[in-house]
Amino acid sequence: MTTGVAVTTTPTSVESLDLDPAFALHRGGKLEVRSTIPVRNADDLSLAYTPGVARVCTAIADTPSLVNDYTWVSNVVAVVSDGTAVLGLGDIGPAAAMPVMEGKALLFKEFGGVDAVPICLDCTDVDALVETVVRLAPSFGGINLEDISAPRCFEVEDRLRALLDIPVFHDDQHGTAIVALAALTNAARLTGRSLGDLRAVVAGAGASGVAVTRILLEAGIGDIAVADSKGMLYSGREGLNPVKDALARDTNKAGHKGSTEEALAGADVFLGLSGSTVPEAAIASMAADSIVFALSNPTPEVHPEVAAKHARVVATGRSDFPNQINNVLAFPGVFRGALDVRATTITENMKVAAAAALAGVVGDDITAEYVIPSPFDKRVAPAVTAAVAAQARADGVARL
Amino acid sequence: MTTGVAVTTTPTSVESLDLDPAFALHRGGKLEVRSTIPVRNADDLSLAYTPGVARVCTAIADTPSLVNDYTWVSNVVAVVSDGTAVLGLGDIGPAAAMPVMEGKALLFKEFGGVDAVPICLDCTDVDALVETVVRLAPSFGGINLEDISAPRCFEVEDRLRALLDIPVFHDDQHGTAIVALAALTNAARLTGRSLGDLRAVVAGAGASGVAVTRILLEAGIGDIAVADSKGMLYSGREGLNPVKDALARDTNKAGHKGSTEEALAGADVFLGLSGSTVPEAAIASMAADSIVFALSNPTPEVHPEVAAKHARVVATGRSDFPNQINNVLAFPGVFRGALDVRATTITENMKVAAAAALAGVVGDDITAEYVIPSPFDKRVAPAVTAAVAAQARADGVARL
Repeated sequence: MTTGVAVTTTPTSVESLDLDPAFALHRGGKLEVRSTIPVRNADDLSLAYTPGVARVCTAIADTPSLVNDYTWVSNVVAVVSDGTAVLGLGDIGPAAAMPVMEGKALLFKEFGGVDAVPICLDCTDVDALVETVVRLAPSFGGINLEDISAPRCFEVEDRLRALLDIPVFHDDQHGTAIVALAALTNAARLTGRSLGDLRAVVAGAGASGVAVTRILLEAGIGDIAVADSKGMLYSGREGLNPVKDALARDTNKAGHKGSTEEALAGADVFLGLSGSTVPEAAIASMAADSIVFALSNPTPEVHPEVAAKHARVVATGRSDFPNQINNVLAFPGVFRGALDVRATTITENMKVAAAAALAGVVGDDITAEYVIPSPFDKRVAPAVTAAVAAQARADGVARL
Repeated sequence: MTTGVAVTTTPTSVESLDLDPAFALHRGGKLEVRSTIPVRNADDLSLAYTPGVARVCTAIADTPSLVNDYTWVSNVVAVVSDGTAVLGLGDIGPAAAMPVMEGKALLFKEFGGVDAVPICLDCTDVDALVETVVRLAPSFGGINLEDISAPRCFEVEDRLRALLDIPVFHDDQHGTAIVALAALTNAARLTGRSLGDLRAVVAGAGASGVAVTRILLEAGIGDIAVADSKGMLYSGREGLNPVKDALARDTNKAGHKGSTEEALAGADVFLGLSGSTVPEAAIASMAADSIVFALSNPTPEVHPEVAAKHARVVATGRSDFPNQINNVLAFPGVFRGALDVRATTITENMKVAAAAALAGVVGDDITAEYVIPSPFDKRVAPAVTAAVAAQARADGVARL
């Protein structure tokens, strides 16, 4: 069996690549489309296709909402990417993004019973992305945006949310935000504090950094400050794009203007969403019972074993350490719940409710190494689904 | 059990609609997306998703053609419609078109093992349709256009064929053309003639009328003349759109300028693709051993039992009469063959080869009531697949 390194020496030989089990597993792709009804004979065909199908089409033309009852639209989500920010690989384009989008579609089905279709688009302009998804929208019950680079992703999502009456959810933002909020809620509980007691420092002002900060503000965190590659965001800093400028105004009560390391002195929480590194000394300078979420993949901002020397609770994005912040804990249940009640949108309340339900699964079993459930915990998706559906009804955005 | 008529009196009650077996069958839609690989535990997830998937993405970024080996792209076709010419229902829009596109996708899988995704677009402008499909193209191995009204469908297909290096096929045109050519080849054989011996009259200059005429010209029909709703197309007729004008120049050697009925006097073949009606007297006026394909659905241009009083061979689009001209005899095998060799396009030769293979399945069992195989004949798709793949190689458009 070869390693990834050996494999890249003969990149075009499929036989050689297939020695890597990840490639062997991907051979021919990971998805298929299947019929849910039998087509054994002419009678079956006359109902599923012409002439029977014409009656169904006519009924939908007369009463458009029937499309949700008599087609798969109300159960199918488009996983849409332009391939500009794929995993930690960056702008690799739509074709190379396809394995990730197929994987996402697979997780939608396995964990949420949601049918999902990977749609990798050959355009990166915001107007083109928005226009294309709007044109596709009649075919889908929801839009999951994926791996679209910041700051374009914010405008794409905002505009699609305004234009469409189906859920639009950028998972890199909100999936991460929901799971991080759940884990942080439990970490605070473990240490006898509420979110309002905590001062947090976020490294990274990209898609996930912005969304995590926003949901923590929504959930009532005591103070939170965000750093981009040039240092802390503060009100009045020159040259900020509109998203960062708004964030600067809503955060950083303490007025930090230096580096992440400086802001971490005495802080309760570090949230790494940047791909950068943080020195051990900065982690050591945090307050007692500190909480460190080093979420960059595959290389966390600080190694979790190093962080654990100083912090009370440590989480990463990796499956080989405790407390994995994995989006699959959120997006299948979020869409399942939204689709079940045919929600017109996913509200901030629905995201917070999803996080609360996810945190609740941990219950009394909470420890420093168990503030968030395993992705394979069968209780997770039903709990998130129920919470999201109930909150959609409470928020008045449910159609069922 | 209620009839279609009874059902339309309570169009919004799902419970009432479900009394119609066509509606009951369509409840919840007809398709699902499934994983083809197991995701039982963290090890599976680490190969199918992060971190393992990153190696596959990187390999595709380095060697783009690997997308065909390691994703489902090379086996998945987009069934694209704008809902403007759905069955005989006309312009019912993208949502109401979805049951037909789902049905098509189902047939792709059942008959050709081709995964297909229904994409109903909320735009009808030619530029917008072309632009949208080009943006979607990285996600698919082929594009099956469906139920787009003429004459826009011709330009949409022509432009997409020029812009994309994957098969683009408007089934309403070419699926019908392939099956009609196969049936006509056998009908000529039954009556001891070749296509070159036949004079044909086509009623209908829409998508299928134009494509059937073009493939019959390609296959060497003796003479063929086409009528639209205003009468026969002839060179110099005023007010023709460019597609009809070109057709007028290439057809109608006999110079008919009147009605379909007039042109049918002494003709060998009638091809109805119009939704209009033809009087029995006109059928009676045709030559001996005449061939009548009355293909409009659900109401043929002339009732097949009436036509059979005068014609030697009668075919329709319906499953409840002999010789059903059903596109499902063509498109699954055409795409299966094209995808198997990763064809860059579907050539005219490939369509003619598909028709020859389809005609060949009938073999020595040929009778006046059996000039075309049943849609459920298991020999059809393999025969068409093999012929299309071989012709793609012969034409130099195969990548495998």
